[in-house]
Amino acid sequence: MKINLNADLGESFGAWKMGEDDALLQVVRSANIACGFHAGDPLVMRNTVRTALAAGVSLGAHPSYPDLQGFGRRPMKMAPNELEAMVIYQVGALAGMAAAEGGRVTHVKPHGALNNQACEDAALADAVARAVRAIDPGLILLAPVLSELYKAGERAGLRVAAEIFADRAYTDAGMLVPRGQPGAVIHDHDELVAHVLRMLDAGGVVSQGGKVLPAVMHSICVHGDTPGAVDNARRLRAALEAGGREVVGLPDVL
Amino acid sequence: MKINLNADLGESFGAWKMGEDDALLQVVRSANIACGFHAGDPLVMRNTVRTALAAGVSLGAHPSYPDLQGFGRRPMKMAPNELEAMVIYQVGALAGMAAAEGGRVTHVKPHGALNNQACEDAALADAVARAVRAIDPGLILLAPVLSELYKAGERAGLRVAAEIFADRAYTDAGMLVPRGQPGAVIHDHDELVAHVLRMLDAGGVVSQGGKVLPAVMHSICVHGDTPGAVDNARRLRAALEAGGREVVGLPDVL
Amino acid sequence: MKINLNADLGESFGAWKMGEDDALLQVVRSANIACGFHAGDPLVMRNTVRTALAAGVSLGAHPSYPDLQGFGRRPMKMAPNELEAMVIYQVGALAGMAAAEGGRVTHVKPHGALNNQACEDAALADAVARAVRAIDPGLILLAPVLSELYKAGERAGLRVAAEIFADRAYTDAGMLVPRGQPGAVIHDHDELVAHVLRMLDAGGVVSQGGKVLPAVMHSICVHGDTPGAVDNARRLRAALEAGGREVVGLPDVL
Amino acid sequence: MKINLNADLGESFGAWKMGEDDALLQVVRSANIACGFHAGDPLVMRNTVRTALAAGVSLGAHPSYPDLQGFGRRPMKMAPNELEAMVIYQVGALAGMAAAEGGRVTHVKPHGALNNQACEDAALADAVARAVRAIDPGLILLAPVLSELYKAGERAGLRVAAEIFADRAYTDAGMLVPRGQPGAVIHDHDELVAHVLRMLDAGGVVSQGGKVLPAVMHSICVHGDTPGAVDNARRLRAALEAGGREVVGLPDVL
Repeated sequence: MKINLNADLGESFGAWKMGEDDALLQVVRSANIACGFHAGDPLVMRNTVRTALAAGVSLGAHPSYPDLQGFGRRPMKMAPNELEAMVIYQVGALAGMAAAEGGRVTHVKPHGALNNQACEDAALADAVARAVRAIDPGLILLAPVLSELYKAGERAGLRVAAEIFADRAYTDAGMLVPRGQPGAVIHDHDELVAHVLRMLDAGGVVSQGGKVLPAVMHSICVHGDTPGAVDNARRLRAALEAGGREVVGLPDVL
Repeated sequence: MKINLNADLGESFGAWKMGEDDALLQVVRSANIACGFHAGDPLVMRNTVRTALAAGVSLGAHPSYPDLQGFGRRPMKMAPNELEAMVIYQVGALAGMAAAEGGRVTHVKPHGALNNQACEDAALADAVARAVRAIDPGLILLAPVLSELYKAGERAGLRVAAEIFADRAYTDAGMLVPRGQPGAVIHDHDELVAHVLRMLDAGGVVSQGGKVLPAVMHSICVHGDTPGAVDNARRLRAALEAGGREVVGLPDVL
Repeated sequence: MKINLNADLGESFGAWKMGEDDALLQVVRSANIACGFHAGDPLVMRNTVRTALAAGVSLGAHPSYPDLQGFGRRPMKMAPNELEAMVIYQVGALAGMAAAEGGRVTHVKPHGALNNQACEDAALADAVARAVRAIDPGLILLAPVLSELYKAGERAGLRVAAEIFADRAYTDAGMLVPRGQPGAVIHDHDELVAHVLRMLDAGGVVSQGGKVLPAVMHSICVHGDTPGAVDNARRLRAALEAGGREVVGLPDVL
Repeated sequence: MKINLNADLGESFGAWKMGEDDALLQVVRSANIACGFHAGDPLVMRNTVRTALAAGVSLGAHPSYPDLQGFGRRPMKMAPNELEAMVIYQVGALAGMAAAEGGRVTHVKPHGALNNQACEDAALADAVARAVRAIDPGLILLAPVLSELYKAGERAGLRVAAEIFADRAYTDAGMLVPRGQPGAVIHDHDELVAHVLRMLDAGGVVSQGGKVLPAVMHSICVHGDTPGAVDNARRLRAALEAGGREVVGLPDVL
């Protein structure tokens, strides 16, 4: 009955602030930390690592396409060897920051468009998995449940953690309902908590249409960048613990 | 009678090529590899690491100010904590690349304006040394002989390797004669070799004016980006070996 | 009895927001718009130009060193021809955006470290003035009162507008009291208004020590990036108008 | 019997050189000048503009996706309003550089992946055409013959110049044979000249399979970045002139 809560953190850049990292780091147990390509400069990275370690939160690299202006949300297309090197570069940079603060990176979760594309494109997903294994075969790949990225991690022999999104509805195929479609994003506190518990109890993804897709689930992704988001995360954690689940760091859930 | 030869490598970027890396990697024993801030993209870094490891050349990170357009040669001024984080980021990125290729980074040498400024500014030099120690206290700091950076490395308790430049003349104070002044850069093959041997034999820097400044010297920096440069490096290595010196990787010279 | 109010605007970047531009554009009469080097991406620039034009606010380019991470506040050193080209590039980019929205750029004000350095370094200031004149000799250079940049604009034959800062104290030499020193920044509403009126009435800069340095003053810089800043700007404008001064666009004050 | 020769120029960046611009500027009559997003920094842009003007070559902006590392050759996907602003920014920057050198930009030709995508995607092509018209409706859009981009230019009411590539074979559909397929790139001097003359004489694109697709053709694109490329361009120009064609700037061919 162990489960992980993760969040994307360290997404400020220079003079620009984003997210309520300090508050969220008291709720989640794993941090996906921006590595400078979509957000996060070296100083932001170091400060985020330090705060996360102080909060006992496990560290993950959150590599992205090189796209500060687009926050890593704009799809790009690059050769597999370029992509691999790009992921290694970012994971290495964060690993250096972790070492400097006396910690270490234990997982990798791709960001934004890179993550989205790797969930659907097996070849791209394999390139990401190869990069993670190349830099350290002990790293955990944190990948959306039922995704091509999840499968690629298994093919690569990595430990893979399956992630569900607390505030997103799923299609009958187990994919995220695209933003913009009705009900794609769950804003209501109670509904969000119910959505997550329903899936954990069912032992699989529960789609908008009520279909259950059996799947192992290790981690729940929460957000901190919208009003009320941290509150939602707190309530979710309280509900999980009230239900007898232990909320732990990613390495402890596998 | 051991000595190291080092060179700045991996300074291509994307579609733009620079330097004769493949040839130079057959001559030197240590590579200072650009980390993406003044040159070197992730793919260039990975390829350079791979080629260097295949040639048995020890790996060094060559961090710079963030200045692709100026090739890291334009002085900047940033807060010490920003500078530290920036150095850690770059060293970590290269360390990741080295791990992915089955090697490891054994030294750090700052690049361009950062190096120049750290040779004269003790506070800046201390920030660089702190960054190196923070990421891995076993790393060697490769610093110009008699420089503030060298002293900062010693203050930080790092192993420090003292570097002389094969093709640069020195002032009576032991500093490089500024480019643009007469005789600052030594182009002639024989003169360059004689210059180096004179210093090694004298056990210290020999200035343009003939003054000897006693100093330990561990490594000689050669270049590969001008016509004839690789040839100069080859001749220098041959002369060193003919004189009974063994040319080794940086970790073996300390 | 005409005076201009200006503010730095368009300093958001991609997903990161900064400043209360919409509110401030209802108060000031001239906008110094970031050109992508310290802040402002093309889309932010276009939207800012559009909003400024709708508010009848005159458009200025706000060029900076290339330093997104440091928000253009980190001193750099580059060759004069590089600097000139860098300024022309940014002014041209904003001029294109203005043309696309049916307006035109009428002034240039350097940003951050570039502005600070150009206020003290005559050679640097001349390079900025040359760049402005090269792209369009009809452009107004907006420069701090009594600064080297102001003088460089006059030497270049440009129309120059002298700027005072509403919330900053001045030394007896007419320079800004450095941030960090007591009283450097004026936070109190009433004091800020009194400070400006005192200078306008005295016909010159009034230092912290009460010294008057006679100078023509065309424009007052206000800020919108701290709590209460927009309010301060509104009160200042009201006080100016109550005193019989007309607050106009920069081209109308010269 | 007028025809234009164009080339992509100004693709050096900082310390990295690319292309034989000086030689090529003596052969072509129009220059597509990189605007800093895939190549070309402000200083390179200014120098290229100056040299082009001295050679009597007409100036074009060569805007790209923001992708220095990938040389603008990596496909990206961005919102139409972002794309428009991005094109306006780059054209404006080059227009500023042209103004500073006493010239003006007379055409726009997208670069690399942006050009390729705009040749096939009508919506993307419309966004490019809107951007060009917004900044200056008098600008010429230089677009590949028979492409969606060409049609978008016409829809936008722009003057459009149709371009053929001297060294590329065409499919029966009038598109470029993809690099990597047999015969896609024409290296042989005589074949290249014959290929161009065949198309001009036929009054349309002549495909690899011999099919003629009638089309107006205003400009021939030549390259300068491979060995022998400048020589090819010279021979082509000589052959055109020997055949009674006048090689003129782009504004003179429409």
